[in-house]
Amino acid sequence: MNPPRTYDESAETRAARLGLQIPDYRDPPYGGRYGTVKAFHRTGRLLFLSGFTPEDRSGTVLHPGRLGHDLTIEQGREAARAAAVNALGGIRLALGSLDRVTSMVRALCFVVCTADFDEVHQVASGATDLLTDVFGPDAGTGGRATIGVMQLARRNCLELWLTAETDDAE
Amino acid sequence: MNPPRTYDESAETRAARLGLQIPDYRDPPYGGRYGTVKAFHRTGRLLFLSGFTPEDRSGTVLHPGRLGHDLTIEQGREAARAAAVNALGGIRLALGSLDRVTSMVRALCFVVCTADFDEVHQVASGATDLLTDVFGPDAGTGGRATIGVMQLARRNCLELWLTAETDDAE
Amino acid sequence: MNPPRTYDESAETRAARLGLQIPDYRDPPYGGRYGTVKAFHRTGRLLFLSGFTPEDRSGTVLHPGRLGHDLTIEQGREAARAAAVNALGGIRLALGSLDRVTSMVRALCFVVCTADFDEVHQVASGATDLLTDVFGPDAGTGGRATIGVMQLARRNCLELWLTAETDDAE
Repeated sequence: MNPPRTYDESAETRAARLGLQIPDYRDPPYGGRYGTVKAFHRTGRLLFLSGFTPEDRSGTVLHPGRLGHDLTIEQGREAARAAAVNALGGIRLALGSLDRVTSMVRALCFVVCTADFDEVHQVASGATDLLTDVFGPDAGTGGRATIGVMQLARRNCLELWLTAETDDAE
Repeated sequence: MNPPRTYDESAETRAARLGLQIPDYRDPPYGGRYGTVKAFHRTGRLLFLSGFTPEDRSGTVLHPGRLGHDLTIEQGREAARAAAVNALGGIRLALGSLDRVTSMVRALCFVVCTADFDEVHQVASGATDLLTDVFGPDAGTGGRATIGVMQLARRNCLELWLTAETDDAE
Repeated sequence: MNPPRTYDESAETRAARLGLQIPDYRDPPYGGRYGTVKAFHRTGRLLFLSGFTPEDRSGTVLHPGRLGHDLTIEQGREAARAAAVNALGGIRLALGSLDRVTSMVRALCFVVCTADFDEVHQVASGATDLLTDVFGPDAGTGGRATIGVMQLARRNCLELWLTAETDDAE
């Protein structure tokens, strides 16, 4: 059982307490398998993150497949959580520390699913619940839409498209 | 027949004239059925809205289904309009009044459809025409893309992802 | 064979050297077949572009169809490149010159594909490689996610949703 969360802790402290394995996108760099892309863009207080999927640094995809066919909701939620942990790596790369995030802005979650699978939001909560755990219920909660789609790169079952706000302008 | 629109009226006046039933997302709050999400995020003059669907406050979905299969374009347009009216509720929650919007920025419209349905833009116009009716042809017109997708949460046939600009910085 | 690229050239110079046929969206205006939409929105240093597809000004769609079914990856890449060239037209309409772009921010690429097609990122690179060719590897590289979808307006196989940063605030 996790210890009770106390939200006067910093985001980095909470990430450490949760034991998250946050990837370091300095080396190897983000995006190598996907062509010319960068991990993030900052302008003013806005941090626009690139797409993050549930792949580890070696390219192994967690739970490839399709919700409603060969993946359970729980597997989808695990994949979503893994994508969010990767997005934390993007945030650290951009800002140096998770503690510089003042708020999630919003997230689009794309979920590969069947035509009958209408619980895409349950899957996406695996990502957004993790963000709330790390940044707290106020700063960690953003707007959201979850879209059931045909396919994603390399059979990833989910991709996260996140915007955040930072503590001071670039 | 509607009276002729005169665009020197305020957005709130036009919304009232159109008889729109704009939901109040203070109570019950936005997003209750969808987990930890918020209705909007403001930073500077930008208003980032969360996803809005054609659901009423009790959770009843207007025209659940799939364009090209069990929904007509007209039903899709009605659903799109209902999602846009809900988004107006998100704007009021964020700003207090529709009159504080200076411009639509852009909208992504996700439409659940069959593989053969290539008129997704006709459906989305149900949402963006309503925004133009309320905010006028200049302020009410944003950029747009409409994407035909596999499925959405709770069999909604459409979801609207809107960004607007406001009259002064937060 | 193209001459070697030298990135101390301006974006307009590179676009000319590449022989790109960049459309002029002043006349006929952007969006005529799609209802009430505008090509872009500027606020501060952010340029939010509307959706761009691989259609020419007469409405002819380059490579309509579906990746994994009736289109090859190379055709998809050509369509993606054409959509990016059109987006350059949107940038010129917004700013007067491509040279006023300081950076790509990020791009969502929507690709119509089959359930088995998991190389959507290869298609999207047709668009983002062109942007890198024009703006250079630093300014021309943004964040990216590519989403395989059910269908798009008018059987376009791809739509590009781009955000850029400009040299000074509006």
